[in-house]
Amino acid sequence: MSYIAPLKDMRFVLNELAGLDQIQQLPGFEDASSETVDAVLEENARLVQDVIAPLNRIGDEQPSSWKDGEVITTPGFKQAFTEYASGGWQGLQHPQEYGGQGLPKLVASACVENLHAANLSFALCPLLTDGAIEALLTAGTEEQKNLYVPHLIDGSWTGTMNLTEPQAGSDLSQVRTRAVPQEDGSFRLFGQKIFITYGEHDMAENIVHLVLGRTPDAPEGVKGISLFVVPKFLVDADGKLGKRNDVWCASIEHKLGIKASPTTVLLFGDDKGEVGAGAVGYAIGELNRGLQYMFVMMNAARFAVGVEGIAVSERAYQQAVTFARDRKQSRAVEGSPAAVAIIEHPDVRRMLMTMRALTEGARAVAFVGAGAHDLATHHPDAAVRAQNQAFYEYLVPIIKGFSTEMSLEVTSLGVQVHGGMGFIEETGAAQHYRDARILPIYEGTTAIQANDLIGRKTVRDGGAAAYRIVEDIRKTVDELERSKHASLVTIGARLEMAVEAYAQTIQFVLEEVKDDVRGVYAGSVAYLMLAGYVHGGWQMARAAQAAVKKIEAGDLDPFYETKLVTARFYAEHLLPRALSLHAAVVDGAESVLALDADQF
Amino acid sequence: MSYIAPLKDMRFVLNELAGLDQIQQLPGFEDASSETVDAVLEENARLVQDVIAPLNRIGDEQPSSWKDGEVITTPGFKQAFTEYASGGWQGLQHPQEYGGQGLPKLVASACVENLHAANLSFALCPLLTDGAIEALLTAGTEEQKNLYVPHLIDGSWTGTMNLTEPQAGSDLSQVRTRAVPQEDGSFRLFGQKIFITYGEHDMAENIVHLVLGRTPDAPEGVKGISLFVVPKFLVDADGKLGKRNDVWCASIEHKLGIKASPTTVLLFGDDKGEVGAGAVGYAIGELNRGLQYMFVMMNAARFAVGVEGIAVSERAYQQAVTFARDRKQSRAVEGSPAAVAIIEHPDVRRMLMTMRALTEGARAVAFVGAGAHDLATHHPDAAVRAQNQAFYEYLVPIIKGFSTEMSLEVTSLGVQVHGGMGFIEETGAAQHYRDARILPIYEGTTAIQANDLIGRKTVRDGGAAAYRIVEDIRKTVDELERSKHASLVTIGARLEMAVEAYAQTIQFVLEEVKDDVRGVYAGSVAYLMLAGYVHGGWQMARAAQAAVKKIEAGDLDPFYETKLVTARFYAEHLLPRALSLHAAVVDGAESVLALDADQF
Repeated sequence: MSYIAPLKDMRFVLNELAGLDQIQQLPGFEDASSETVDAVLEENARLVQDVIAPLNRIGDEQPSSWKDGEVITTPGFKQAFTEYASGGWQGLQHPQEYGGQGLPKLVASACVENLHAANLSFALCPLLTDGAIEALLTAGTEEQKNLYVPHLIDGSWTGTMNLTEPQAGSDLSQVRTRAVPQEDGSFRLFGQKIFITYGEHDMAENIVHLVLGRTPDAPEGVKGISLFVVPKFLVDADGKLGKRNDVWCASIEHKLGIKASPTTVLLFGDDKGEVGAGAVGYAIGELNRGLQYMFVMMNAARFAVGVEGIAVSERAYQQAVTFARDRKQSRAVEGSPAAVAIIEHPDVRRMLMTMRALTEGARAVAFVGAGAHDLATHHPDAAVRAQNQAFYEYLVPIIKGFSTEMSLEVTSLGVQVHGGMGFIEETGAAQHYRDARILPIYEGTTAIQANDLIGRKTVRDGGAAAYRIVEDIRKTVDELERSKHASLVTIGARLEMAVEAYAQTIQFVLEEVKDDVRGVYAGSVAYLMLAGYVHGGWQMARAAQAAVKKIEAGDLDPFYETKLVTARFYAEHLLPRALSLHAAVVDGAESVLALDADQF
Repeated sequence: MSYIAPLKDMRFVLNELAGLDQIQQLPGFEDASSETVDAVLEENARLVQDVIAPLNRIGDEQPSSWKDGEVITTPGFKQAFTEYASGGWQGLQHPQEYGGQGLPKLVASACVENLHAANLSFALCPLLTDGAIEALLTAGTEEQKNLYVPHLIDGSWTGTMNLTEPQAGSDLSQVRTRAVPQEDGSFRLFGQKIFITYGEHDMAENIVHLVLGRTPDAPEGVKGISLFVVPKFLVDADGKLGKRNDVWCASIEHKLGIKASPTTVLLFGDDKGEVGAGAVGYAIGELNRGLQYMFVMMNAARFAVGVEGIAVSERAYQQAVTFARDRKQSRAVEGSPAAVAIIEHPDVRRMLMTMRALTEGARAVAFVGAGAHDLATHHPDAAVRAQNQAFYEYLVPIIKGFSTEMSLEVTSLGVQVHGGMGFIEETGAAQHYRDARILPIYEGTTAIQANDLIGRKTVRDGGAAAYRIVEDIRKTVDELERSKHASLVTIGARLEMAVEAYAQTIQFVLEEVKDDVRGVYAGSVAYLMLAGYVHGGWQMARAAQAAVKKIEAGDLDPFYETKLVTARFYAEHLLPRALSLHAAVVDGAESVLALDADQF
């Protein structure tokens, strides 16, 4: 089997670190009993392992293709999507009133990880559809919700996010797509969007495009952007499909990775459809507040892309372990009668441990974040909601930025473990390396996440959320250092060093940002990565505490010993990276910025 | 222009850091006057910029292809190779008596870097031919040298290295190719070799395969391996081509990168040629000493692959700078009336500075190594030769391992600077990312380099070479700290911290290797990377000293200010990485090795 869902680690994180028991007691999650959660995870594992993972190589070898405006997806995708949708997976975390399951984000996150690990390219279609559902639920009218959401949840339709234009990549203030109001209250859209994931495909009957555009009298910049829903086929009040709308796929991109996922150029208003010139669209929510609504989608999508980084890392790790166990090569460094499996070589161990520690650490951070989101949305106490909301929002850029950056290291190590075979495409290790490379770019580059972390998440509340986290980590350090367990004490010492570097970095950011904004932002990604290492190290330390508790209670499952070793590896090999990142932030700005542009 | 040879930086390194003036005075290098060196560099730049660099994208889009045992190279390659060879470039560092130019390795290294930067795939053919020439010169008879080397130098023939077999990747003790002695003193070879670069192609009249094999009575293991020369077409005493030999290209690999370079499977003894069954080969040097001779080729090739890492980094950097200057996106963080070129954004600066600092540092280390090689081979004083030989040999695994590992970071940053465009293949940034990925694998993985660094280069002489380097670096630290120049003092402080971490790591390796060989090797790659950062930082510090001297002497060329800033960036952002690597070596072995293989 090419991928096995890491259910054991997922259950451990859900139960021991992310507080599933607490979330199950929240109003609205009464149905999420442990039996239900177990059944969901098992069934999800079966689907992704048996149906979706085997399509991953095929998708790379037979990418989606474009012809005359239509996109043919990879053989097998359509059938797999039907199975996915009919199993109710698209609705996992969406409200029951629209046909969803209404499960906690925490539980959904495990399923999302598995889906992406099985097949990043495939999983992007559900990911975008999730975003469209969230935006409609946030800002749509009752009529819009009722018209679109049930079809998006049942998989008969899918969703897209149309932000980027050729002249406006990350900078949405530059969006130029025109939305001209019509007498009936609808709009006609004209413009070009690029990098639209699953903007055209053959897996569903209709595609619901959510599109950023500008009305003729809108203000300049981000305050004049509105959100529109533009269905590929117009929909009558009963949801029956009507005329072909004036939105067209002009081409798809030839990409480094995620080749089965069609990345489309969409033309709105090319006058080729059955509706005349201009794509028919309907405003969602109030005009000129589109960016706000889009942020709702983007935050969910950013979280999900972070999970993609974890997912591709887990898959690359599993493949590397399998290869390292099978491949015999060279004698052991300490001497051996014959060649040994390369998993016995110390440096292969180092690579595999690095891969698993990064992956497990990032998973724990993401799932803990998902749990905070559930508390923030469902806890009866407003103060608890607010605190968890702040924690979640602080974590999102870290989950997105760090998990995707670390996936580059993990998938690269995955290639390296394979040696020369890793460079041969048939082996499959290279695909993960290529696929992962988009993750730190789309849904906001790492620099954009880092700007968000500094601006909106650290400075805006005067460091309140950040310092509260530091205090929580210090509490864990105290517990570790008071422990009598040697590994916990070691982990505590490393975590203390790292959290103090983190605290000093936060302080530096807060103190300097007014006087030297460029200098602080020169260290923005280092701050984000430092935060990522510390949060991963914190959760791995908590995991080590939980593991020791199990071991000391007599639990003989080797999982706990393995977790403890992995946590210690994280502390000894990955937490020290916090020191060099700290140095880069607090002492390094001048040399980053000293040159003139023409000196490069 | 897609690539511009960085002649200014190369000349600076040659003259200010690598001691070209001293090398020009060595016996045998009398012809390498400064005028000659300048002319060579200029002419080399013209060739690679105008002829070879433009073929790089074409090679990726139209890779070499295989049909019925023959390989058609990318359109344009054959003509370019003719120009390359007729310009005398293959013979640059080879003896004049065989038609070469006899120039110092130091000068040749700059040309090799430019060739690889222009086109990694193309440059591999000359690289392998260089290796074949070196092996023949080392161990061949006069007759063999005269028969093969002039044709290899004039480009009418090319060379290959045939080491790897399906069951024997890096582990050459497992080589099984049979070499059966014939009555006329020749051999017949039977076996299969894989991953043979340019093992078949259409750019030259003949291909000279150097092949590792075993005679029937050879001892087991590496002591029974012999080296044979197996020409594709047999050659008579005058060098005229005769019968087609029994060596065949069964297929070429479908690879992640360097797609224009045909990576072949070669079958020896398939009985399809004009010579009957068995590829006709001739022993080079003594039987059973093949591995020793191959090491001569491998050391030269490892150095060259290190230079490849620098080359692809330089190219990725140039492309990223060009894009960052052209692309306008988002307002400045400190506020600006309109969108600015992204090179103005602090994090883009951080990425570009990281790319240039890593590249310049690694270049300086490699060229200083090349200079040491020239002293080791041409200095009249045996003691000077020996010391430089030890220094060069210590550096080779670092140049190979570090320069190639850092090229992964640099080419990845190159993609990131491009944002979403970086993921689109047409942009070209992704090609560098894919091409670079082979570099830490072939010619010995980074782990193999690291084992070499520990075993043969650090432990075998009791740390003598390593500690001598530490002393030299400490001298530089002293000079820096006694300087009155603020940047030099800052650089000195960071270098001191890093060199002490380096010294402690060397000490740890020497002290622990006997009692805990697995533990020490668990930190082998961290030791290598630490050494790489320190050596790069050292050379950048020396560069800063030279730059300050020029500036203080009134030289207004902005190059020196740029170099000083880059050196300071290196010290502030890259040298701190030495700390976390040091921690991984001295404290991290237990957690690397604690798990059983089945716990992964």
